[in-house]
Amino acid sequence: MGTEIEHKFLVRDASWKAGARGTRLIQAYLSTDPDRTVRVRVAGDEAWLTIKGRADGPARSEFEYPIPLADAQGLLALCHHPWIDKTRYLVPFGDHVWEVDEFHGENEGLIVAEVELSELGESFERPPWLGADVTDDPRYSNSGLVRKPFSRWA
Amino acid sequence: MGTEIEHKFLVRDASWKAGARGTRLIQAYLSTDPDRTVRVRVAGDEAWLTIKGRADGPARSEFEYPIPLADAQGLLALCHHPWIDKTRYLVPFGDHVWEVDEFHGENEGLIVAEVELSELGESFERPPWLGADVTDDPRYSNSGLVRKPFSRWA
Repeated sequence: MGTEIEHKFLVRDASWKAGARGTRLIQAYLSTDPDRTVRVRVAGDEAWLTIKGRADGPARSEFEYPIPLADAQGLLALCHHPWIDKTRYLVPFGDHVWEVDEFHGENEGLIVAEVELSELGESFERPPWLGADVTDDPRYSNSGLVRKPFSRWA
Repeated sequence: MGTEIEHKFLVRDASWKAGARGTRLIQAYLSTDPDRTVRVRVAGDEAWLTIKGRADGPARSEFEYPIPLADAQGLLALCHHPWIDKTRYLVPFGDHVWEVDEFHGENEGLIVAEVELSELGESFERPPWLGADVTDDPRYSNSGLVRKPFSRWA
């Protein structure tokens, strides 16, 4: 068990992408309830089951367990649709490594950047390509993007 | 990953209980959706996270992972209420060991007996104390008993 402390932003332009290496992530939800999300994630031949509690600003309780890839494939079949398909880029800036997620499929066109902090109130440098802070906007959570994908936003 | 094949019955009288040893189980649900239940179970100092798919008669897909007790306590705090509190008795009869669950709390008064089979169509002997078959009645599933506890049935 742990606490995830994460700030989420839109991006202003594509300058973050120069030289960044991406990893394809497939993830889907057994529960998209904001009080108790249950996520199955596959990255290459690794997979995890992750439970998160309700977000309190940038903080959420988080429980993560590695699971066999074959289990993950069986669990994905039980999950809500659509699945989230995205490429995650790791972009170092200042003292932090930003995770920039470029979404595909029904969320194509959406790009968000996240920074994970070790404690509440920890400061971080804002890269020049950073856009609006959407940490507190539940539409941008991945489970929110299952409930209402970006392509269906007004 | 596996497939759980289970038949569930009411009990006719208390004769099953003679000499049976019980274990207290506390379990609760992160998802009570019948298509994808997510259960946290604690028995003594052991705990598990279990995902089950939709029941197809007596069969359901099942994925189970042992988790640390401290995690289970944190996860229980995220779960739907009420939690399920029951004593499970193991009652050998013929070639099978029946699990008889005596519910407490908001499900007080309910007792169900389950037999787990290795394959569909496997035969089993019916003990004399066995009552009605409720395998296909979703009210008697544990997640159903969270959605509507026995004490609130008409």
